[in-house]
Amino acid sequence: MLEELKKKVCEENLRLLEGGLVILTEGNVSEMSPDRKYFVIKPSGVEYGDLTPDKMVVVDLRGEVAEGSLKPSSDTPTHLEIYRQFPKIGGIAHTHSPFATIFAQMKKPIPCYGTTHADAFMNEVPVTRSLTEEEIFVDYEINTGKVIAEILDPENGRGILVAGHGPFAFGESAKYAVQYAHIMEKVAMMAILGKYDHPIQDALLKYRHFHRKHGKGEHKYYGQN
Amino acid sequence: MLEELKKKVCEENLRLLEGGLVILTEGNVSEMSPDRKYFVIKPSGVEYGDLTPDKMVVVDLRGEVAEGSLKPSSDTPTHLEIYRQFPKIGGIAHTHSPFATIFAQMKKPIPCYGTTHADAFMNEVPVTRSLTEEEIFVDYEINTGKVIAEILDPENGRGILVAGHGPFAFGESAKYAVQYAHIMEKVAMMAILGKYDHPIQDALLKYRHFHRKHGKGEHKYYGQN
Amino acid sequence: MLEELKKKVCEENLRLLEGGLVILTEGNVSEMSPDRKYFVIKPSGVEYGDLTPDKMVVVDLRGEVAEGSLKPSSDTPTHLEIYRQFPKIGGIAHTHSPFATIFAQMKKPIPCYGTTHADAFMNEVPVTRSLTEEEIFVDYEINTGKVIAEILDPENGRGILVAGHGPFAFGESAKYAVQYAHIMEKVAMMAILGKYDHPIQDALLKYRHFHRKHGKGEHKYYGQN
Amino acid sequence: MLEELKKKVCEENLRLLEGGLVILTEGNVSEMSPDRKYFVIKPSGVEYGDLTPDKMVVVDLRGEVAEGSLKPSSDTPTHLEIYRQFPKIGGIAHTHSPFATIFAQMKKPIPCYGTTHADAFMNEVPVTRSLTEEEIFVDYEINTGKVIAEILDPENGRGILVAGHGPFAFGESAKYAVQYAHIMEKVAMMAILGKYDHPIQDALLKYRHFHRKHGKGEHKYYGQN
Repeated sequence: MLEELKKKVCEENLRLLEGGLVILTEGNVSEMSPDRKYFVIKPSGVEYGDLTPDKMVVVDLRGEVAEGSLKPSSDTPTHLEIYRQFPKIGGIAHTHSPFATIFAQMKKPIPCYGTTHADAFMNEVPVTRSLTEEEIFVDYEINTGKVIAEILDPENGRGILVAGHGPFAFGESAKYAVQYAHIMEKVAMMAILGKYDHPIQDALLKYRHFHRKHGKGEHKYYGQN
Repeated sequence: MLEELKKKVCEENLRLLEGGLVILTEGNVSEMSPDRKYFVIKPSGVEYGDLTPDKMVVVDLRGEVAEGSLKPSSDTPTHLEIYRQFPKIGGIAHTHSPFATIFAQMKKPIPCYGTTHADAFMNEVPVTRSLTEEEIFVDYEINTGKVIAEILDPENGRGILVAGHGPFAFGESAKYAVQYAHIMEKVAMMAILGKYDHPIQDALLKYRHFHRKHGKGEHKYYGQN
Repeated sequence: MLEELKKKVCEENLRLLEGGLVILTEGNVSEMSPDRKYFVIKPSGVEYGDLTPDKMVVVDLRGEVAEGSLKPSSDTPTHLEIYRQFPKIGGIAHTHSPFATIFAQMKKPIPCYGTTHADAFMNEVPVTRSLTEEEIFVDYEINTGKVIAEILDPENGRGILVAGHGPFAFGESAKYAVQYAHIMEKVAMMAILGKYDHPIQDALLKYRHFHRKHGKGEHKYYGQN
Repeated sequence: MLEELKKKVCEENLRLLEGGLVILTEGNVSEMSPDRKYFVIKPSGVEYGDLTPDKMVVVDLRGEVAEGSLKPSSDTPTHLEIYRQFPKIGGIAHTHSPFATIFAQMKKPIPCYGTTHADAFMNEVPVTRSLTEEEIFVDYEINTGKVIAEILDPENGRGILVAGHGPFAFGESAKYAVQYAHIMEKVAMMAILGKYDHPIQDALLKYRHFHRKHGKGEHKYYGQN
């Protein structure tokens, strides 16, 4: 079932290797089926060089494996929680990309310093609160999804940092989620290595760069129709 | 029309991927036709892996598409404004290369710290003023071209930083513009990671390295005739 | 003899090139035979581009070459000392990966700042004491093994830094040792470039991320069975 | 003439691309003929992608082109001056590798912080004095060779930084010169990003790591015989 989707999700998982967003078995990408009854996700602990579409795992909305001979990513309950709470999100990319992870480990948001950031993210990329010890002991991965949901903007939320852990990126599909994961790493890198404090002008952020890519009607003029 | 030029411009756009000057759909390269009646530019929002010569867009000097089924880069009005005001410029490369973009976001010029810089750029690479809110709201991309034109040296200007945005590089052709974009990123990287304050000797900059590549007559002895 | 093992050890040596853990002839990987009577190791001073399985060297537990026409790595006595003292270790990877080497040169442990680190290493990656002049003059490489053994955790020790020199990683096989070498470099890079002081929560480190990969029974739920 | 040497010099020039030691047309490698009557060097201003053995230029010890249709590197007089003054040097590699160039631009030597450095370089990699204005105006490239010769150790000098410009590496052949250029970049990178002040122990530097690779008789035990 969902053979086309498995192929797409496999391809997008492999795109995490570009630019070093993941190494070894780190990270995972998933995408919802068009009817939002299932999502397809990377299997747990399999190296990227060994990934093929038939190894992708189909999971239903109770979190049960609907198809696949391998165990799904150990972060599957986090993906499930986000898909449940955010009907606009169709794809999720979780990486341990180094510079975004540095911000997550610092428990600090990625500030918006220029148009590269504004092209993708409205304002800063926020960071979750730390989980309580109880939240870590019981249902850790579900609780990771819940602390994301506490602060993610349902309209414009394309990326978030889980405190002490790493980044998650979201889009209408796996493809866009992976693209936002790449941009998040790049703007994090520039923010870490730049060490400055000159935020972008609000007009440039809100009225131009974000809206020329993601706005409605005539405000969106970037890209093909 | 201009099939050879489309091929060249496509190739030079792809060279932005080397060294990570762009990711995803960032950036764009254009080149003027020999009669300076048209320029060829990357289409808007197309990923580099999908670029082919026939997707390049031919634009005339009123900014209208003369040939091409795709929309041209959203930065086309910026390119047009520069070609109009600088008759010596035949090619333009706009990137979001990380270290040059850090300087643009800091709104600081890239200082000249050694011969790698002096081989390409006479003195520092300057940064534009910030646009006013009005310039952002109306004709943003044309105004980006205008603030570049306010400070670009018509004789020796091979690179500039747009405040809060990123670098533009210029040359007699797209090929040279792309080369200057690569050098700008490299010298920006060395300036950011080095953190020092020992500018190059004036004699080394002006009398040797810049002129042995770009000088007139016997002063130019680098490269083949 | 041990043809399969030579092939595996050759492959794992080549994986050190990924991510720049070594350049030129730096570094070496070895693995013990299943009966723990021999180990196979990279030959000394051979470039990675020239490595083939038949060039691997078989060494016995007295440190003598049992098979192979080339001299084994000059670090062979260090590997031997570790295999002798740590019966759980089946593979060793020694690199000069830049960021882990920076920590080794600083004679400082790599602190645990997040789950990327906790997924692989229990607590910080420790650093050995400096060798005495006498230990450097006589049996330098054996003494390098001895100072490692002074502080390596026999249960959970997957990585260590030799003061002034560089990192060693350990696993049940060469494959896992190389994986820990990659993760050590990544967490060292994030720690160097991040410059912060917010250590990971103990609960996240001990009760979740380390144990979900390396724990016993139900605690280990990452990866396939 | 010297067809084998042209092939080797072409190959070693191309190895500068690995690890980003050069971009575009930067840098150059040369090697002396066995009879030390000629050296073969990269042509001036030719991109690495276009280099072939037949484009290499043969230069005699008066600095005249003995064979080749292209102009030799503009740095040829520097190479000539070094070959004249240092009979043990058989190959020279000049790069603009970023981190070594940062040290050259800072006019500071690369300190020895660990065994990666000590494996290749005895003590720090020194930096030349700045050239006087007169030395820049007249015979600039010859004078670059002369300021190198003022401080290069004729026995153990494998690398040097030209103030404000960049690194030169030396070996018995082009192959070794290129290897030292790679190691110089790596140790410069670790020194810049590490920011520490714990120099290597003298015993480790002098009595072990340098001599196990470059020492005489029994002291040299690294590599094959």
